[in-house]
Amino acid sequence: MNAHIVTIGDEILIGQTLNTNAAYIGEQLVNIQVNVKKTSVVGDNEEAIIKEFKQCMDENDIVVVTGGLGPTHDDVTRKCVVNFFHTVLVMNNEVLEDIKARFKKSGRELTVTNQDQALVPKIAKPIRNSLGTAPGMWIEKDGKIFVVMPGVPYEMKAMMESFVIPNLKDKLGELELLEKRDTLLTTGIPESVLYEKLGNLDDLLEGAKLAFLPSQFGVKLRITVREKDEETAANRISAIEQKIRSKVGRFIYSSQDESLEQVVARLLIDRGISLAVAESCTGGLISNLLTNVSGSSKFYERGIISYSNASKVEILRVNEDTITQYGAVSIEVARQMAEGAKSTSGTDLGLAVTGIMGPTGASVDKPVGLVYIGLCDDKVCTAKKFIFGDDRIINKQRTAQTALDMLRKYLLGISLDD
Amino acid sequence: MNAHIVTIGDEILIGQTLNTNAAYIGEQLVNIQVNVKKTSVVGDNEEAIIKEFKQCMDENDIVVVTGGLGPTHDDVTRKCVVNFFHTVLVMNNEVLEDIKARFKKSGRELTVTNQDQALVPKIAKPIRNSLGTAPGMWIEKDGKIFVVMPGVPYEMKAMMESFVIPNLKDKLGELELLEKRDTLLTTGIPESVLYEKLGNLDDLLEGAKLAFLPSQFGVKLRITVREKDEETAANRISAIEQKIRSKVGRFIYSSQDESLEQVVARLLIDRGISLAVAESCTGGLISNLLTNVSGSSKFYERGIISYSNASKVEILRVNEDTITQYGAVSIEVARQMAEGAKSTSGTDLGLAVTGIMGPTGASVDKPVGLVYIGLCDDKVCTAKKFIFGDDRIINKQRTAQTALDMLRKYLLGISLDD
Repeated sequence: MNAHIVTIGDEILIGQTLNTNAAYIGEQLVNIQVNVKKTSVVGDNEEAIIKEFKQCMDENDIVVVTGGLGPTHDDVTRKCVVNFFHTVLVMNNEVLEDIKARFKKSGRELTVTNQDQALVPKIAKPIRNSLGTAPGMWIEKDGKIFVVMPGVPYEMKAMMESFVIPNLKDKLGELELLEKRDTLLTTGIPESVLYEKLGNLDDLLEGAKLAFLPSQFGVKLRITVREKDEETAANRISAIEQKIRSKVGRFIYSSQDESLEQVVARLLIDRGISLAVAESCTGGLISNLLTNVSGSSKFYERGIISYSNASKVEILRVNEDTITQYGAVSIEVARQMAEGAKSTSGTDLGLAVTGIMGPTGASVDKPVGLVYIGLCDDKVCTAKKFIFGDDRIINKQRTAQTALDMLRKYLLGISLDD
Repeated sequence: MNAHIVTIGDEILIGQTLNTNAAYIGEQLVNIQVNVKKTSVVGDNEEAIIKEFKQCMDENDIVVVTGGLGPTHDDVTRKCVVNFFHTVLVMNNEVLEDIKARFKKSGRELTVTNQDQALVPKIAKPIRNSLGTAPGMWIEKDGKIFVVMPGVPYEMKAMMESFVIPNLKDKLGELELLEKRDTLLTTGIPESVLYEKLGNLDDLLEGAKLAFLPSQFGVKLRITVREKDEETAANRISAIEQKIRSKVGRFIYSSQDESLEQVVARLLIDRGISLAVAESCTGGLISNLLTNVSGSSKFYERGIISYSNASKVEILRVNEDTITQYGAVSIEVARQMAEGAKSTSGTDLGLAVTGIMGPTGASVDKPVGLVYIGLCDDKVCTAKKFIFGDDRIINKQRTAQTALDMLRKYLLGISLDD
């Protein structure tokens, strides 16, 4: 079964909004073995939308559309559906009741605009919206499936989970060859070095596929195999993964599409180790990532964002003379910040970063991108120097990723040296 | 001039990577008055890529392609360009020198794989890559422009800035009608309430266009006008903006596509006001956002991520009895945290948040989504209660956005009450 995902909205075309919806839908469809052939974005323009509907329906079995279902005048998707399928709008009482109940609960007055959202094209089965007012639409025609959902990400996701994916699964028969994917996430090694270290890919893969996906967080390795059943596919993937691990294992932090912070959080929770974080240049990013993980209060005790020198001295007990002698961005201060985070909070570990993220703040011997990361336990305080690039936001991300990876290596007993 | 943006890569199709490239390119093209008609994503598949090239070139004046130019076997874009334009690869010495210089500087050894990246299709002018090894390509054929760039976002951005945009500007003549856009960013008001408050849109707009773009950070209002010259367009936009401001002005935090943190940072810097932040439930997100702004050290003194009760008491001097009596998530603790952040750091303002982000941590009278935000200056400590939703990450984002908006309203003398 081939699918095409259509996103509607000028805001996506002109780059004001990232197309997270297409990414989410693509991932969900692939998980149930649908072959996503293409995604496209068109503006809030009836002619362009209807042209896109036609082309997608001609070339695919499944078309999934999001966007343009809101209550305002620039939302034209429903009108396009009516025209494209030569159908009419009818009031749907179930949907109307949903909308009325929503407004009653929040104590807001129901407007005519909102009431009109219960009008559904006759050809469509409405998909109820548990988080908003606009219903989705499920249309089957000529053996093909056409799904329309609102563009608000969490409303769309709730519809995908509760309605679209279960219904698509019902429609999909057993597939002859099962495609299975696995992704190994690496960090701290450049793409071309990784490629060379893996050696001859034909020997390694024996017909399977391997994709390299680089970003500032590291390189993802995606393995894809096609086999006759689940078990054979799982065994093939596992065999390839083992070969890759034997060559570059220490750079792989996950094979579950977990983020590095999820991996680190799991390790800390499993081992009952507590952590305090002292951040200067990352300004709270490391702590924000760690506390995105549900259950982080089990290991995360506190964080100090010691932007000023005074805060380094007052809260983290960094020696004032050390700052004067070596500067706030120095290996000595990184070590003292980590030690101070640990000792003042009474945790098992202290992690600290200090650096120059740019664009300002550099000096003759301290360039933009210079970072020191310190990590202390009860016995040892380690600190390491890094030089990243020129972009402030990317520097913050790379510093956070590298600090979390130091923590991971420490927890797994992997050497911190390259 | 109509444009189509093509992104190549399975990782985008299957949702492993967000399509930030298409968003960035769309924004840049719109800024120079290019009409972005459509964007699409195809996988690492030669047949699909060449089919997409053909359709885009048939229907548009400008085609911009990213992705699939890397050094590994799954990068097939250059091969597709060669086939589509019936051309051949030739070694480009300038590009080869660039690559050699890059490797020399970083002290890495040049591999054959990297050397081959200097092979450029004969029909193309290479676009030099200042941040990586794969060159881009600029092709002109039959009065149309075809641009190919690497998929690594910062390499692509550098090429857009230094080469693609300046060259496209040269190619674009004066346009008959100038399209100009402006976006007003609102927060703290639901889309349908905003819509109703604006009243009759035809009277308001007189032929201009208005789009509503909702997200968890608020609703963006995008105004688009088409006029014969820059000045008339600017005056039209300004007149419409004034009418909108007279109706919903207090909810508008920017008309410059600035983030709320940029607005708040600017206000703090302009007024010479210093800030300390105490975060519990947001775990560093507010501080991370504020320190994303270059120059934030001018107002941001320190942050305390007081996840544990001990850290609230030890660093922020929150009264232990208050925590016992009212709980860590209470209006009293929010107020004391803000007061403690300010007094212990000696700043002008203290901002604090405490809440339950979920999925765990709720009790009978304290649901997931409950948040208290406190803000203190030398004279007054204010704290307010909010109830957000069920999703941990969205709750963190909404809490941070609301806290920053409280700060904005305070700095502008806007009442904090609804």
